[in-house]
Amino acid sequence: MSLMDVLISEVGPRDGLQSIAATMPTDAKKAWIDGAVAAGVSEIEVGSFVPPKLLPQLADTAEIVAYARGLPGLTVAVLVPNARGAADALAAGAHKITLPLSCSESHSLANLRKTHAQVLEEARQIAGMIRALPAERRPHFEGSLSTAFGCTIEGEVPRAKVVALAEALMAAGCDEVGLADTTGYADPVSVKAMIAALWAALGREALTGIHLHNTRGLGLANVLAAYDAGLTTFDSSLGGLGGCPFAPGASGNIVTEDLVFMFEAMGVRTGIDLERLFDVRERVAAALGDEPLYGFSPLAGLPLGFRPATARNTIMEGEPA
Amino acid sequence: MSLMDVLISEVGPRDGLQSIAATMPTDAKKAWIDGAVAAGVSEIEVGSFVPPKLLPQLADTAEIVAYARGLPGLTVAVLVPNARGAADALAAGAHKITLPLSCSESHSLANLRKTHAQVLEEARQIAGMIRALPAERRPHFEGSLSTAFGCTIEGEVPRAKVVALAEALMAAGCDEVGLADTTGYADPVSVKAMIAALWAALGREALTGIHLHNTRGLGLANVLAAYDAGLTTFDSSLGGLGGCPFAPGASGNIVTEDLVFMFEAMGVRTGIDLERLFDVRERVAAALGDEPLYGFSPLAGLPLGFRPATARNTIMEGEPA
Repeated sequence: MSLMDVLISEVGPRDGLQSIAATMPTDAKKAWIDGAVAAGVSEIEVGSFVPPKLLPQLADTAEIVAYARGLPGLTVAVLVPNARGAADALAAGAHKITLPLSCSESHSLANLRKTHAQVLEEARQIAGMIRALPAERRPHFEGSLSTAFGCTIEGEVPRAKVVALAEALMAAGCDEVGLADTTGYADPVSVKAMIAALWAALGREALTGIHLHNTRGLGLANVLAAYDAGLTTFDSSLGGLGGCPFAPGASGNIVTEDLVFMFEAMGVRTGIDLERLFDVRERVAAALGDEPLYGFSPLAGLPLGFRPATARNTIMEGEPA
Repeated sequence: MSLMDVLISEVGPRDGLQSIAATMPTDAKKAWIDGAVAAGVSEIEVGSFVPPKLLPQLADTAEIVAYARGLPGLTVAVLVPNARGAADALAAGAHKITLPLSCSESHSLANLRKTHAQVLEEARQIAGMIRALPAERRPHFEGSLSTAFGCTIEGEVPRAKVVALAEALMAAGCDEVGLADTTGYADPVSVKAMIAALWAALGREALTGIHLHNTRGLGLANVLAAYDAGLTTFDSSLGGLGGCPFAPGASGNIVTEDLVFMFEAMGVRTGIDLERLFDVRERVAAALGDEPLYGFSPLAGLPLGFRPATARNTIMEGEPA
């Protein structure tokens, strides 16, 4: 496996597929995950343990988790809305479990029908279930601070509230919190300020990753700000699938292809081979049919003579660099 | 006029319109420029003095310059390919004249049919023509370092070559050089390194602006890097028009709307009112017919409760901020 400077966490099979009407066949999902792993992707959010009636697109999550666990070197991540979903995730053997908590309580009530106190109680239950497992079977448990940069119902979400909720999630037993710009409200300055505030309250180990959207075109600029601040894990979605786009042409999630291109061009190793990633995009596009994909680098192609950081790392001494 | 922290230089009426097949009527161009100025845009590249046979879309540049000069507070910029075009620009009364020099000599020969030495000779002639004018009529003369971050023919362009050409342009009599990522090869690290190299050689006053493309999706991340490094002038195009897109869906120029949104969200004043800018977009879209426009923020709309930096600046003390 290649050395990495940053971890690109692919969320397409969960966040992307739950946002589109069609259900991707299980075999196509497996082929996507296979291709991503072959390209060097080392963490994939493969599904969500929600009632199949709500999200039939993800009804095969347990099967996908079992399959993905067989791929060497892959961290198999899942989303869970509550302790009941977490029980399924633990039974399936996911390596990482993420519970979203919407920092805007209005948004939490509208989307999860739960108050902050209720979500924190779910977090406590999940942490208890994990502690009851033998150490070698315990997954990493992350509390995701969604709408951390603002909410379409409440508008601004005070930074102090986000910090307090992060502290509450850690106290409830999360191993880590993650920042999520669910609504595309973040900008480079607010990203840096939020990271500084959370690190001041929780220490650096409690926050290493961020889930940013490209809703207003600032996705990669916000990634750059977060990377400059010191974060090392970045969520993104192949072809920018998912992430609740607001309007046609407005994308939600950051595009994995462009994100990897940016880091590799900067000399920051992602461990991912861009040409292979572009191939995966082609295959996923074919499997999705008419679903529009986003991203610029796959259309423009790589610059002439481009030397990605990950490949440079594997060049032997003595070879022309 | 609003106070500004950065200067957004709108290049759509030149760079955008020269890239599309249709010719926008002169009145529609004037309406675009009127709308942009009303929104707070203070510098516009309104056209290019090239032979009308080559670019019929810009055949009315002299009339547009004369019109735009009547708009208070607006810097009227034009592109010129050579001394002959510069003579027309001087006669028309442009405030700013930009001469592109392609750092890749292969690219220069392919596009302008001129060697570096020949372009530098044009620069010397233009500088001489400007010096011959009374001081109050002398325009600002910029040499633009195109393909500074790489070239589709030569690949990598050595940084030392860019620095040497910048020195040659200044020696030829330019007031300033500008960086241009003509091919979309730049990344945040190369942007910062190039700025540092040019400032070390020429001093900070010789380079204040950059023309970045979004060909591979890195446009705003590269802007952020350039801003962090200390540049203060950023070219962009309404709706991302122009900039030699490589393929359908792949945009060329940075989108003015998203660029202004990013800075205003960061608390950096552009002097531009976003809602008015979105209105200009609508009018230009209508005038262009089927031409696709790029950009995310106009589709997503502004965040709930959004407070742009430019507006915040005008809030009186004592009002809630």
